Amino acid sequence: MKKTSTGARLVVAGSGDAANMRYACGFQPVDPVLLLHTARERHLVVPVLEVGRAREEAKGTRVYTPEELGLPLYDRRSIAAWAVQLLKRARVQRVRVAEQFPLGVARALEESGVQLEIASAALYPERESKSKKEIEAIAVAQQAAAAAVRAAVADIRNAHIARSGELKLNRAVLSSERLRQTIDRTLLAHDCAARETIAACGRHAADPHHRGEGPLRVSETIVLDIFPQHRKTGYWGDITRTVVKGPATPKQLLMYRAVLKAQAQARARIKPGVRADRIHKEVQDTLRAAGFRTEIVNGTPVGFFHGTGHSIGLDIHEAPSISLAPVRLRAGHVVTVEPGLYYPEDGGVRIEDTVAVTARGARVLATCPYTFELK
Amino acid sequence: MKKTSTGARLVVAGSGDAANMRYACGFQPVDPVLLLHTARERHLVVPVLEVGRAREEAKGTRVYTPEELGLPLYDRRSIAAWAVQLLKRARVQRVRVAEQFPLGVARALEESGVQLEIASAALYPERESKSKKEIEAIAVAQQAAAAAVRAAVADIRNAHIARSGELKLNRAVLSSERLRQTIDRTLLAHDCAARETIAACGRHAADPHHRGEGPLRVSETIVLDIFPQHRKTGYWGDITRTVVKGPATPKQLLMYRAVLKAQAQARARIKPGVRADRIHKEVQDTLRAAGFRTEIVNGTPVGFFHGTGHSIGLDIHEAPSISLAPVRLRAGHVVTVEPGLYYPEDGGVRIEDTVAVTARGARVLATCPYTFELK
Repeated sequence: MKKTSTGARLVVAGSGDAANMRYACGFQPVDPVLLLHTARERHLVVPVLEVGRAREEAKGTRVYTPEELGLPLYDRRSIAAWAVQLLKRARVQRVRVAEQFPLGVARALEESGVQLEIASAALYPERESKSKKEIEAIAVAQQAAAAAVRAAVADIRNAHIARSGELKLNRAVLSSERLRQTIDRTLLAHDCAARETIAACGRHAADPHHRGEGPLRVSETIVLDIFPQHRKTGYWGDITRTVVKGPATPKQLLMYRAVLKAQAQARARIKPGVRADRIHKEVQDTLRAAGFRTEIVNGTPVGFFHGTGHSIGLDIHEAPSISLAPVRLRAGHVVTVEPGLYYPEDGGVRIEDTVAVTARGARVLATCPYTFELK
Repeated sequence: MKKTSTGARLVVAGSGDAANMRYACGFQPVDPVLLLHTARERHLVVPVLEVGRAREEAKGTRVYTPEELGLPLYDRRSIAAWAVQLLKRARVQRVRVAEQFPLGVARALEESGVQLEIASAALYPERESKSKKEIEAIAVAQQAAAAAVRAAVADIRNAHIARSGELKLNRAVLSSERLRQTIDRTLLAHDCAARETIAACGRHAADPHHRGEGPLRVSETIVLDIFPQHRKTGYWGDITRTVVKGPATPKQLLMYRAVLKAQAQARARIKPGVRADRIHKEVQDTLRAAGFRTEIVNGTPVGFFHGTGHSIGLDIHEAPSISLAPVRLRAGHVVTVEPGLYYPEDGGVRIEDTVAVTARGARVLATCPYTFELK
């Protein structure tokens, strides 16, 4: 079977390839490990420390210690040696690797006569279409995220507004940091972990990736962007809600309504066969028609200057995106829908749901109210 | 200044190079970003979404959006294009990269005439010697880890032993999963996060990287290995304690005493100039002299079959290690000291502290009792 060697894929986890590793063989390593995936078999080399866990988690995969390959018993730095030895044994002379495959291992393989082809798109393009089981795993993470939004919104709702304009809850300042604690505790209780939870207020909310810091304040938008990874399954969820404590300004209300409308339109347009870039274009048009300009002001982008969405799975950002690329959505894609508007003087507004593309349209994986003003 | 180009280093975070990125410029990205570090300057290319945060966090670094380099406004997949364009502008034709540098970017650079040299050891060898500030950052994470050990030990101490031999706390089974919740909640309260906390009992404890699952049981060793990363600083801590609820078996007691002795000896030997492999050899000798053999039984390693320690910093596993390599410890190294013994029939015992190497010897960064039997 010629296919064995031409179809071989090589993955080094601990290199950005971790999600590929998990997808291909179910194993989530602590230290770097190596997977050779031929058309017929999966071979996994792991440090001796990982071998017990690997044999348990990597079902249907042949697991080797370096010693079994005739290499030193333990040496964390020998992935290149493992790769050369494993491919020699398996008589594989051509492998496909991901763009992010480590250069050091690549050079060692090339010196030993192996030919490396970088996968033109993804190394595991099949990851794009999620199975029922994968969609349910994402839904579980997404429901945890929605529960965390509700906990955070409850804190903001229960807070009172001090004379200074700062929010206080149980006599202490309600800050971005404190809200993040509430969010992350809720996620933990759902066996999920988040690394970069956003709870950003005012000017910080106008910067889409600012995590937020300091006291939350009256009449400033508060962006809650929560993207947990489930610890057992490894699948991510991603949700964003924006609220304001006390009265919103007229401009904030207009921003909110425009984003809410654009988001609902985009969700309604999602179905198999639709071009993602056209959905993105419509979102841009809707926001522009509502009077919101996208431009660079003093070196800072304002308006709507990111994509409408991205796919999600074992990575938080996967292909395809709902953005500039003219790709068609298919049943089984799981994408975020997250238009936003950002102006430093007025804050930021972003509304995001994660949906599965089905024959009947977008299935929202966790519902969560779209409340804006909390009085 | 010729040095500008010959001394240039190139880092892509999001590829396993994340700690190098953080070390070099203080920035911790969500999406992949690119850093060119010449002898004189640091240039950082980030997606437009990250630009606000990057300008705030990456002090003393020139931050570019792809647009400012004449490239499309947003495209997550264009790191290779960013790299080619940035190096052209900076007139850099030779760069050093880490072994784990992404092959796709490397090939694009080579095609544009740039010469890539893989750093023979680390791309930032200066990371090995920690500054006072770095040691304090590690100590903060380590103190969080010690607090989590105390919380877990308190739960085990307060548990009672059901007739089945399972531990129960407040009428519910005390499991690995439940103990991990307690540990991770404690870490969160200290602004730390842990991904792979180990709370493993019995046979699981005999597998050094098993996370543990199911009910904890009487007279079985429980390994608590806690390695949190501080969310603000990015520095890690690492601690392990082993306990047993109810009476330990005679063999478990012997294992514990041997590991405790070997660990104390190793800590006492640590000072600048000492060879790390000799410390490791002494640990092996001490455990062997106590009657514990290291071998492979039915394909499973038993005894003491990992290194005595590893360095720790912005990565959980850094160089140098206290293991086979004949390297000398220096003041400013921060290393773990973690001998262990593992036998499936008897469980596992590991004791680990994280210490800074100082002129006066090993400074333990967080103290925590070495209690074994909890009755």
